[in-house]
Amino acid sequence: MTKIAAAGKQSIDHLSELAQRIEAPPISWLMDQKLKYPDLISLAAGFTDGPSLPAAEVQKIFKTITRTKKRSMEILQYGVGAGRDILRKLTASNTALLDGQDEHHPAYRSDRVLITHGSQQFLYLLSEALFDKEDIVLLEAPTYFVYLGMLQSFGVQSRSIPMEPDGLNIKLLKETLETLKRTGQLSRVKLLYLVSYFQNPTGYSTSHAKKKAILKLVRSYEKDAGHPIYILEDAAYRELKFPNTPEQPSMLTLPRARDRVIYSGTYSKPFATGIRVGYGFLPEPLRTILLRIKGNHDFGTANLLQAVVEEALISGLYASHLKQLQAQYHKKAEWMCQSIEKYFSDSMTWNRPSGGLYVWANAPDHVSTGPGSKLFKACLKERVMYVPGSYTYGEDLQPNKPDHAMRISYGNATLSEIQQGIKRLGTALRASE
Amino acid sequence: MTKIAAAGKQSIDHLSELAQRIEAPPISWLMDQKLKYPDLISLAAGFTDGPSLPAAEVQKIFKTITRTKKRSMEILQYGVGAGRDILRKLTASNTALLDGQDEHHPAYRSDRVLITHGSQQFLYLLSEALFDKEDIVLLEAPTYFVYLGMLQSFGVQSRSIPMEPDGLNIKLLKETLETLKRTGQLSRVKLLYLVSYFQNPTGYSTSHAKKKAILKLVRSYEKDAGHPIYILEDAAYRELKFPNTPEQPSMLTLPRARDRVIYSGTYSKPFATGIRVGYGFLPEPLRTILLRIKGNHDFGTANLLQAVVEEALISGLYASHLKQLQAQYHKKAEWMCQSIEKYFSDSMTWNRPSGGLYVWANAPDHVSTGPGSKLFKACLKERVMYVPGSYTYGEDLQPNKPDHAMRISYGNATLSEIQQGIKRLGTALRASE
Repeated sequence: MTKIAAAGKQSIDHLSELAQRIEAPPISWLMDQKLKYPDLISLAAGFTDGPSLPAAEVQKIFKTITRTKKRSMEILQYGVGAGRDILRKLTASNTALLDGQDEHHPAYRSDRVLITHGSQQFLYLLSEALFDKEDIVLLEAPTYFVYLGMLQSFGVQSRSIPMEPDGLNIKLLKETLETLKRTGQLSRVKLLYLVSYFQNPTGYSTSHAKKKAILKLVRSYEKDAGHPIYILEDAAYRELKFPNTPEQPSMLTLPRARDRVIYSGTYSKPFATGIRVGYGFLPEPLRTILLRIKGNHDFGTANLLQAVVEEALISGLYASHLKQLQAQYHKKAEWMCQSIEKYFSDSMTWNRPSGGLYVWANAPDHVSTGPGSKLFKACLKERVMYVPGSYTYGEDLQPNKPDHAMRISYGNATLSEIQQGIKRLGTALRASE
Repeated sequence: MTKIAAAGKQSIDHLSELAQRIEAPPISWLMDQKLKYPDLISLAAGFTDGPSLPAAEVQKIFKTITRTKKRSMEILQYGVGAGRDILRKLTASNTALLDGQDEHHPAYRSDRVLITHGSQQFLYLLSEALFDKEDIVLLEAPTYFVYLGMLQSFGVQSRSIPMEPDGLNIKLLKETLETLKRTGQLSRVKLLYLVSYFQNPTGYSTSHAKKKAILKLVRSYEKDAGHPIYILEDAAYRELKFPNTPEQPSMLTLPRARDRVIYSGTYSKPFATGIRVGYGFLPEPLRTILLRIKGNHDFGTANLLQAVVEEALISGLYASHLKQLQAQYHKKAEWMCQSIEKYFSDSMTWNRPSGGLYVWANAPDHVSTGPGSKLFKACLKERVMYVPGSYTYGEDLQPNKPDHAMRISYGNATLSEIQQGIKRLGTALRASE
């Protein structure tokens, strides 16, 4: 696809370099398929569970926050750029609590928090603050594909480190850093990006031992890099753990983490995706820079959205809703696993998730899962869709991106769609083996 | 102020070029003064009128949009990147109506609309799509200072064209374009930025005759530029016209405007600034590019915010509230003008606004209004604050930025604060003359 065709058959030579680089997100092609085949069961979308959305809770919250004219006036006016004071404090103390830390621990100070329009905006602001064209980011392989698209638009290079069930392969991370050092490219390395809880797309979580090892290893290359190498811990799925999954501390708990680890989270997925409120913890001077950039984006996340989340947290409605949601996703995940056991052939390998929204399944080496593959076509014919694994690998793996995996989501599908979808997928798989 | 000090006394050499360029917004210094002197009357902030915020309306809207579980579920889920279909259609037809055009006019097609997190986000996305470092933007002088800060962060150059009561000086626009042509810089000119209704900061509106002349003139240089030169018509204050001010058509009504004029507007200022929903109309390939960039920012403006605005429009609550608001700002503006007549000396010149939030006042040539000036200090002593005019001029006017004007806002202040504030300002002015 040429650049010209990509942007509606008109030349884009006169636009910015970013405009000329940015490509249509692969997910939009998947969404087009869904429009084309309305009876298609999509196990591709990362949408959250519809019936679990907190309708009654939000109704209550609306009543509370508009009870007095004074309060209504406050939430309908501009807020401040960094986010509401109380929401930042609640975010700080709740994160400390999840991490089993005292709320006075300096890593969880509320003046390190920035509230954003979804955690996606936080990822974007951080990218703007860190990256110039040709800079290098270390990535898990596979990783979150929207982040890959963002890096591509910034002209940033990736270096992929294979993901394992307990986090990325430390030995290969070291090898990558060594190669970068040897080839004089370490000065361009700005960030290591980790989706550390129930990763999108694999569902894997990074163990505490690996978090420790990663921080230590990355720091040991800073002298050669000549500058800090930050680690972004994207904890978007952290609160979507299943009821019996133990809580794992974040990298913020580690010694010497505070000035290197950037931690991001979200209230959207655990509460309501139509309410886009995310957040990040970050050290200076980065926070000041992100705050300035955000001032140019939007002067701060809509005060009303923040007020809704704040009231959800204060009233306990957030916590009670989350508890139900965790049980609901657990049920759906188990249902998907049972369906897979029933309908997939033994040649498929896959993981049983302990949180998050995804099952990551691997087909045998001779079966491609790509969007043009025999399997994908068979799936469309059967009216079922998944996210092709190749979408989730960094550009540095071209032209040999792994092409045998699929991300299957139980987030938005109903129990009956999950069963039916997996059955259809099983049929398509058998037809393609 | 060095770059290092600006970002909290730590080196920022390792951050992006944008991070190294971006400066603290001047408005944050003003906000610090307000914190320092809590009894200060701020006529600086562009905040909107508190008591006029639509508290009762929003309460009603919340009830309606959460009446059924089905509707609640829909608005609490992710939306689509471009914005809600119905909201885009309402935006298109309402803008056509304001412009006195048939809703089937091709300039007002809803597939040309992009809904954003406030119109500020629209300005940002467009900048990302158009500008590389060293590109050139033509600006009104004075102009919207947040936009100036954004351009500075992108490393974009400005060329300032003096503003007159009916829009920028056409002769000087032509001279500027001629100079750019002669010096071979026309190829870097990407955009002319106009705040065409009740401009921030002057309150001036661009006449229809000048809109026509501007479009014709700018188009006539495209051949030499070698690419389209877009015109951004920022209509943020359009709906804040006073009751008797006649409606003025936008540039979208002009022949051959559709593929060059980008029009932006907002629902935040006319309804509630805590609900950040803005929009833009734009031609391809730009709209596709902005949509992709927005996908990386946030996957689309929070569905809940859009649903609130959509219901406000459908129910008629937006229109009825706006009518009251227009009358309220008219009253406050008149009150400010009366106070100025009473308390300012005759050596001050100023405009009587017909909409928007601002009075633009000019002191005699020997009186500086800058943040370090005798006058500004006298104002702080008297406990009153304005936006120094020098903040609102492009960097190309350095080191000779006009320094004798002030933006005074009646938006957020009460009637008594307006009178008291203007009285204090008059005292400070007399002490500084």
